[in-house]
Amino acid sequence: MKFEVLILGNSSATPMYERHPSSQLLNFNEQFFLIDCGEGTQMQLFRYGIRSNRIGHIFISHLHGDHYLGLVGLLSSMHLVGRKSGLHLYGPAPLKEILDVQFRHSDTQLRYNLIFHPTNPDKEEVILETAAFKVSTFPLTHRIPCTGFRFDEGKRSPAIIAELVEQLNIPKQYIGGIKRGLDYTAPDGKVYKAAELTIPPPPSRSYAYCSDTVRVPDYIAAISNVDLLYHESTFLHEMVERAKETLHTTAQEAAEIAKEAGAHKLLLGHYSARYRELQPLLEEAQHVFKNTQLSVEGKWFSV
Amino acid sequence: MKFEVLILGNSSATPMYERHPSSQLLNFNEQFFLIDCGEGTQMQLFRYGIRSNRIGHIFISHLHGDHYLGLVGLLSSMHLVGRKSGLHLYGPAPLKEILDVQFRHSDTQLRYNLIFHPTNPDKEEVILETAAFKVSTFPLTHRIPCTGFRFDEGKRSPAIIAELVEQLNIPKQYIGGIKRGLDYTAPDGKVYKAAELTIPPPPSRSYAYCSDTVRVPDYIAAISNVDLLYHESTFLHEMVERAKETLHTTAQEAAEIAKEAGAHKLLLGHYSARYRELQPLLEEAQHVFKNTQLSVEGKWFSV
Repeated sequence: MKFEVLILGNSSATPMYERHPSSQLLNFNEQFFLIDCGEGTQMQLFRYGIRSNRIGHIFISHLHGDHYLGLVGLLSSMHLVGRKSGLHLYGPAPLKEILDVQFRHSDTQLRYNLIFHPTNPDKEEVILETAAFKVSTFPLTHRIPCTGFRFDEGKRSPAIIAELVEQLNIPKQYIGGIKRGLDYTAPDGKVYKAAELTIPPPPSRSYAYCSDTVRVPDYIAAISNVDLLYHESTFLHEMVERAKETLHTTAQEAAEIAKEAGAHKLLLGHYSARYRELQPLLEEAQHVFKNTQLSVEGKWFSV
Repeated sequence: MKFEVLILGNSSATPMYERHPSSQLLNFNEQFFLIDCGEGTQMQLFRYGIRSNRIGHIFISHLHGDHYLGLVGLLSSMHLVGRKSGLHLYGPAPLKEILDVQFRHSDTQLRYNLIFHPTNPDKEEVILETAAFKVSTFPLTHRIPCTGFRFDEGKRSPAIIAELVEQLNIPKQYIGGIKRGLDYTAPDGKVYKAAELTIPPPPSRSYAYCSDTVRVPDYIAAISNVDLLYHESTFLHEMVERAKETLHTTAQEAAEIAKEAGAHKLLLGHYSARYRELQPLLEEAQHVFKNTQLSVEGKWFSV
């Protein structure tokens, strides 16, 4: 089952060197989630061959322009190319006003249903849950209200041991129950534990997205044990004072956070325009947390 | 004296094939004017080596997203790179509300003075005038209020005939007066007409920008005799009904308008996403008006 993220933009506020402001596309078993939507996101989707109408849910972390300014353009283009299916949008409450004022003055009535779900920047919340996955927000500490997002795969089913089922001649209608953990009683009265008849499922995977935040311990629990942690790393650690001042994080801090949270892999991003070369950010983080990669636009990363 | 326009975006509403939404940079004697500011304009400026802080005036034709969605990002980046000098912004009155709501929610206080001048979509108006140039608006007919812009070079000074000045030994302090048309009386009482001592200036040049409009005769007078006319040409003429429906123009119509208005050169743009190849649009227009060119992103066109 696919669970991977495409980097559409990895730049911080001033986009430079052909880097774009924050945006990522999460493919969860062919369901597409867009996370943040900086200016130019619709062009980036086109560039990487993603039809925007495949996106069913959009998540906006906060209202700094480099995280949402591509939204009106993307929503308008979805309208223009004839989207009919509803679209769920999660973000800070005032985003509604920002969209409304622009659609009003451009006299746009979207052809599809845009369902807006305001996020709460003050506490952890599950904002979307199905059997297959769960999405939660958690507060980050930035200059304006900001949330991170965590995507958890639902409990995966164990796999039936086919040879055993055949050998015991277990009727088909029992298979679903066995997968859900029910024991099987054979016609001769013998009881077979579900665990005997199945292979345990692979562990559920999780992805966390920390867009803009200063280093604080508050959100460590919320991102604990994720398989892949995306964490902003705007600056090198020599700029830690500037990071604190602007409520951002350094690459070294991002790595320390990954370690503390027990993340398995770390993805850096939101690079300051002062860095043309990104290798020093990577090396700084890897010194603390080996399993670190640079987010690169156009590249897919497995969760 | 430079008078030329750089195409930053030539696409209509749905940006495709690496084409960007409408934006142009006018260089008038090293004064930079930005005309429309579609999504991605700041990245395009960077791509073509233009420092955004050199822009002193921005003109927005109307409030369809493909003509202004790059504005908040550009204004924010100017702020982030430390702009201090004031910036004049001309556009539809509600643009103020659109900017205010976004700057409020991102808690942005611009470091420079943004001076907003609402345009009037109902009548022709001179919106900016110096000795060197004049900028006027004129109403276009689109789905929402929309203005075109006309840029007229001021009267250019005649050039002094240097050999004659030397020969007659005319003192320096008289030169300015002669250029302004004053006659020169030599110490011996002989009067030299200003016209004898100068070469008449080249005629003043003019550029008109017609962003989005259906073909109507109303604005022909406003763009009469311009040296370079940029006119939208969203569709081929086989789509004229669609053009009328959406209040746009075909390439053939753009050429007919250029002819009627007595323009010297025509520049096409605002291409629909349905056209990957643009040559047919060019050929259709040239059939009516020979002196037509396709606007191409990254290319400078002389006025």
